[in-house]
Amino acid sequence: MAQNIYDDPDFFRAYSGLPRSVNGLDGAPEWPSLRALLPDVSGRRLIDLGCGFGWFCRWAVNAGASEVLGIDISEKMLARAVAETADANVSYERKDLDDLDLPPSKFDIAYSSLTLHYLTDLDRLFTTVHDSLVPSGVFVFSVEHPIYTAPSSPQWVADPTGRVTWPLDQYLAEGPRSTDWLTAGVLKHHRTIETYVSTLRVAGFVLSALREWGPSLEQIDQEPDWSRERERPPFLLVAAQRD
Amino acid sequence: MAQNIYDDPDFFRAYSGLPRSVNGLDGAPEWPSLRALLPDVSGRRLIDLGCGFGWFCRWAVNAGASEVLGIDISEKMLARAVAETADANVSYERKDLDDLDLPPSKFDIAYSSLTLHYLTDLDRLFTTVHDSLVPSGVFVFSVEHPIYTAPSSPQWVADPTGRVTWPLDQYLAEGPRSTDWLTAGVLKHHRTIETYVSTLRVAGFVLSALREWGPSLEQIDQEPDWSRERERPPFLLVAAQRD
Repeated sequence: MAQNIYDDPDFFRAYSGLPRSVNGLDGAPEWPSLRALLPDVSGRRLIDLGCGFGWFCRWAVNAGASEVLGIDISEKMLARAVAETADANVSYERKDLDDLDLPPSKFDIAYSSLTLHYLTDLDRLFTTVHDSLVPSGVFVFSVEHPIYTAPSSPQWVADPTGRVTWPLDQYLAEGPRSTDWLTAGVLKHHRTIETYVSTLRVAGFVLSALREWGPSLEQIDQEPDWSRERERPPFLLVAAQRD
Repeated sequence: MAQNIYDDPDFFRAYSGLPRSVNGLDGAPEWPSLRALLPDVSGRRLIDLGCGFGWFCRWAVNAGASEVLGIDISEKMLARAVAETADANVSYERKDLDDLDLPPSKFDIAYSSLTLHYLTDLDRLFTTVHDSLVPSGVFVFSVEHPIYTAPSSPQWVADPTGRVTWPLDQYLAEGPRSTDWLTAGVLKHHRTIETYVSTLRVAGFVLSALREWGPSLEQIDQEPDWSRERERPPFLLVAAQRD
């Protein structure tokens, strides 16, 4: 069972103030790179695993998707998603992705943004997603990069010369990590890149793209504070195809 | 052009004393994992890119390979390889992998151990290797892990509590890294996992396995000093198939 931190009132209030909660996809600097991994959604049936406020679901129907199903564990997020979605081709369901069941060969494209690192059982979900896709269906997702989730103390360190580094440890020790992000005790599950790649393969996917995302130099010109994010990638973006 | 540090007398002397130079494959703790990525070599034609002292070439003919070609830039290493190889099915050539040419559809298996991070032009080599393999031919290689090659100061750091971390920076800044390993000024080329994966794909390979290698808990029981290597993986092991 995944932790449902998004329904914690303090977490929800803080999360709701983030640029990506206020401005949607335009507030997520990795969105252009993630979007580039997606095939044309026009006329396709999509599922969004961890849909949050529904920004991606609404983008997809606006881009021509015939049907979009958003799944999330958070009651508060889904309430806002429903309130902000007018299109009848979008529907939402409240489910824990750790024990999700889906109809077979139902979707053309599965999508997930910054959600899978909260789950305890990736093998089960990847098999469920695989079986729910049509042959040659596509699965595109982002997660926090394993370099980002691994450390026992995930905080920048400045040495006496002013050099800033990311103190990596525990990379090969997969498992839960309790961190303080927006509120105390947010529970994530650290997995290596090897595990993401091999779990996809075991589930029956062929990897088609892997991106270690950091802000572009143009983005840093706009937001100089982001330059540290090039010292170690914050996100991993993946595209795979049903075999 | 790759740096030929192995022909530097001080480097060569120090390298010749390493366990993997004295004991061959049995002295390389990642060898069992790399070997597990190889198909059966029996009756196959192999090429070893960066063959060094020829340990792998001799292992392959002993395991039944019909023909093995070892390539290396180092005159000193090849001299010892030739002197220690009796089998007529093994041959060696001195070449810089940065401008290697190979006959088309000549090999069943291409292999490379801890060599590719010295090269300046990976795109060219991967295309050359691809074209030199028969259809469905296999390419298996190890490199220093990008987490290992990235830092401006690749040294363990102990904090006041005794916790030891790897000070990661510059991960997304690909390019040369001059480090002191056995001797000063060893020149490596840092690339991200994304680049290894996408360069394979562009060359026409399909990724079949990716391993972020660290010593197993059993190996650490034998060699307690290796436990730090689980804090961040020292090697990346990859298998791919010609499309």
